Amino acid sequence: MSVPPSEGPGDVEVLCVGTELLLGSILNGNARWLAEQLAGLGIPHHRQGVVGDNRERLIAALREAAGRCRVLITTGGLGPTPDDLTTEAIAAAFGAPLEERPEVWADIQAKLVARGRPPAASNRRQALLPVGATLLPNPTGTAPGMIWTPDPEGKEAGLRPGFTVLTFPGVPSEMRAMWQATAADWLQRAGLSQGVFASRTLRFWGVAESSLAEQVSDWLDSPNPTVAPYAGTGEVTLRLTARAGDAAAAARLLEPVEADLRQRGGLHLYGADGDSLASVVLDLLRRRGETLAVAESCTGGGLGGALAAVPGASDVFLGGVIAYANAVKRNLLGVSPEALEHWGAVSDPVALAMAEGVRQITGSDWALATTGVAGPGGGSADKPVGLVHIAVAGPDGTVSAPVRFGARRGRSWIQAVSAGEALDRLRRRVLESAGQG
Amino acid sequence: MSVPPSEGPGDVEVLCVGTELLLGSILNGNARWLAEQLAGLGIPHHRQGVVGDNRERLIAALREAAGRCRVLITTGGLGPTPDDLTTEAIAAAFGAPLEERPEVWADIQAKLVARGRPPAASNRRQALLPVGATLLPNPTGTAPGMIWTPDPEGKEAGLRPGFTVLTFPGVPSEMRAMWQATAADWLQRAGLSQGVFASRTLRFWGVAESSLAEQVSDWLDSPNPTVAPYAGTGEVTLRLTARAGDAAAAARLLEPVEADLRQRGGLHLYGADGDSLASVVLDLLRRRGETLAVAESCTGGGLGGALAAVPGASDVFLGGVIAYANAVKRNLLGVSPEALEHWGAVSDPVALAMAEGVRQITGSDWALATTGVAGPGGGSADKPVGLVHIAVAGPDGTVSAPVRFGARRGRSWIQAVSAGEALDRLRRRVLESAGQG
Repeated sequence: MSVPPSEGPGDVEVLCVGTELLLGSILNGNARWLAEQLAGLGIPHHRQGVVGDNRERLIAALREAAGRCRVLITTGGLGPTPDDLTTEAIAAAFGAPLEERPEVWADIQAKLVARGRPPAASNRRQALLPVGATLLPNPTGTAPGMIWTPDPEGKEAGLRPGFTVLTFPGVPSEMRAMWQATAADWLQRAGLSQGVFASRTLRFWGVAESSLAEQVSDWLDSPNPTVAPYAGTGEVTLRLTARAGDAAAAARLLEPVEADLRQRGGLHLYGADGDSLASVVLDLLRRRGETLAVAESCTGGGLGGALAAVPGASDVFLGGVIAYANAVKRNLLGVSPEALEHWGAVSDPVALAMAEGVRQITGSDWALATTGVAGPGGGSADKPVGLVHIAVAGPDGTVSAPVRFGARRGRSWIQAVSAGEALDRLRRRVLESAGQG
Repeated sequence: MSVPPSEGPGDVEVLCVGTELLLGSILNGNARWLAEQLAGLGIPHHRQGVVGDNRERLIAALREAAGRCRVLITTGGLGPTPDDLTTEAIAAAFGAPLEERPEVWADIQAKLVARGRPPAASNRRQALLPVGATLLPNPTGTAPGMIWTPDPEGKEAGLRPGFTVLTFPGVPSEMRAMWQATAADWLQRAGLSQGVFASRTLRFWGVAESSLAEQVSDWLDSPNPTVAPYAGTGEVTLRLTARAGDAAAAARLLEPVEADLRQRGGLHLYGADGDSLASVVLDLLRRRGETLAVAESCTGGGLGGALAAVPGASDVFLGGVIAYANAVKRNLLGVSPEALEHWGAVSDPVALAMAEGVRQITGSDWALATTGVAGPGGGSADKPVGLVHIAVAGPDGTVSAPVRFGARRGRSWIQAVSAGEALDRLRRRVLESAGQG
């Protein structure tokens, strides 16, 4: 995908230090978070790198970055152990000695004592910074960062004039606290901003990514705002990104594009930004003063869990029954043994009886029921893995219909998308009955 | 964290192409997946990079990497749209013309027609490869990759001898299919392996990361195998990584370390690798021929969902009741109005009654109940956000006790860790009653 073009050179880079990233042990969530923050400040960055806990390779990566960018943001390698090498490597890369900062050592000791842990010799290493560096305070942890311009007079060859490095620990909460307390402000005042980005995510259900992309293909080439489709778990999103001189102007650029895309999306568009199908359904019913219950077989609680994940769900969502075993379907939901025998648990008549049963015993206005074959076992020619029957019961009757996801999707996908599909059917039915479809 | 040291130079690098990574729109899951695969093949890689969809900066990054590494793996930028620039930039970076491969164009057309979509002119761009490149087939999508040694005779300055680039699309499923069908084999035969890595993740519940790290601190400096602690959502893991000449030797290195760590972990250690608390509890009860039901208030279905996420859960997990509203606690679970009035819904007496009620109506051997304040609203001085009462009912009686997570954790964390805590209490109780504690 493209973004509004940048007029300037590559000013900012991110370098994440840690062998665990090169082993694939963890996802690089820090790089993503920093990228989001930089975009929010209107500061483009054009390169990210990852190196391991290796002094020589770290120094090489630092020297390379110093020749390209004005500001380098590093994460990781600030801890007390021997493989935490970032500060030392930076000092070596740019030829400065390390010195102990008494105020930093005092702060580290105080924090450790407050946690009931005696300061160790290894912690004292964390109080070393290159001569001339400014402390980047760590409000929560013991590893301090720094802001350092190694060559303020621009005498050294191979460094971009004014090259400055900002170091952060790899622990996400500490990195974020330091960013918010000190670094974001420093970056804003460093004159790196090239405008402000605003973005908006529109969320769709019941349409394939390729089909949605075709419907909006004329927008996919738009330079500003840009429009980019992504496929999620069952849902498809369009991400709109605009750049302008200030936040209000960026928001104004988004408005007509969003309005047009909402028009084209019709009922497939269910929400925006942080909305979920569950939050949208809860809002719809809350406005109508109505309540909802669930009867879950193949989703096993996941549908209720999605509803309960939304803060304030309790004024609409009453609860329900997890009817995983057939005995629970019979005894708690009143599904008839004959229906289970004749049609099987994975069938429209059973889904209908589950939804009606839970609506009755909870006294809810609406009820959703799921029964299907989530796999990997339990499928048959007649009822393959991925077949799910979903029923919606409401004041004006009960409807059930199957959906076939296919076995290759896997159990967790089938369970999650079954819950989403149930919520989407209720959403459409309520909107259509209200004449909003 | 450290890994077993590498004897060789930096042979392999990964370069991910895509402005969405620089905007922070998505996590770089491809880099992590490739890192895991390379580690599994015993091929160390020492650098990862990310650049946007910008021809000039992409060419610069390619030239830099070509001077450092023998094999460069790229992802992204192989699609049909104008901002898909990877193939073109590679050809330009290493001075080769592009040529259309008729067999590739035929394959793209066939795939599009099979999907009912007419091939567009933009798709034809995807059939262009640099002269001399080998096709890296894409079994599932239309974007082919390539394996190309731009300077096989080693004549060009600035390229490492034998420098070879492998390109993959950014769509994770296509990248993985291409890796498994062709690239993994190619890399294994390229003589890059420096032994084989084996790893093992031990999973702990009920112990803090810092406390576990102290208990095993002597292992944290071990060079081979390495032992690294990570904090997850409620759980803590230790990742053991060994390197040796072959898989059996690597596994033998892990064995004594794992045995020692299991001994030290005691009851806190609940499983390894792909285990979850739910899968471990289901296995325990399955071996005893016993069944389980749940009664969920604050978790709203998430506990049942965690159990149902495990394939084959149905022979142990019967289901239960999502008793989100107090009326459901009374009417379906038989919680007395007096208990709700006197103690409040978030209390041990109510948790006890919920667990006993669901055990009775489902006829299960064991039952778990949760009732708490997940927040962000609904807290009081007496019953703050993060207070959750969890009850375990079984053949030998019912026990309930509160746990206090604190409000700063957030709703989804409180819900997920409450479900985990409930499962862990059942696990410990079953193990202790069986004399395995």
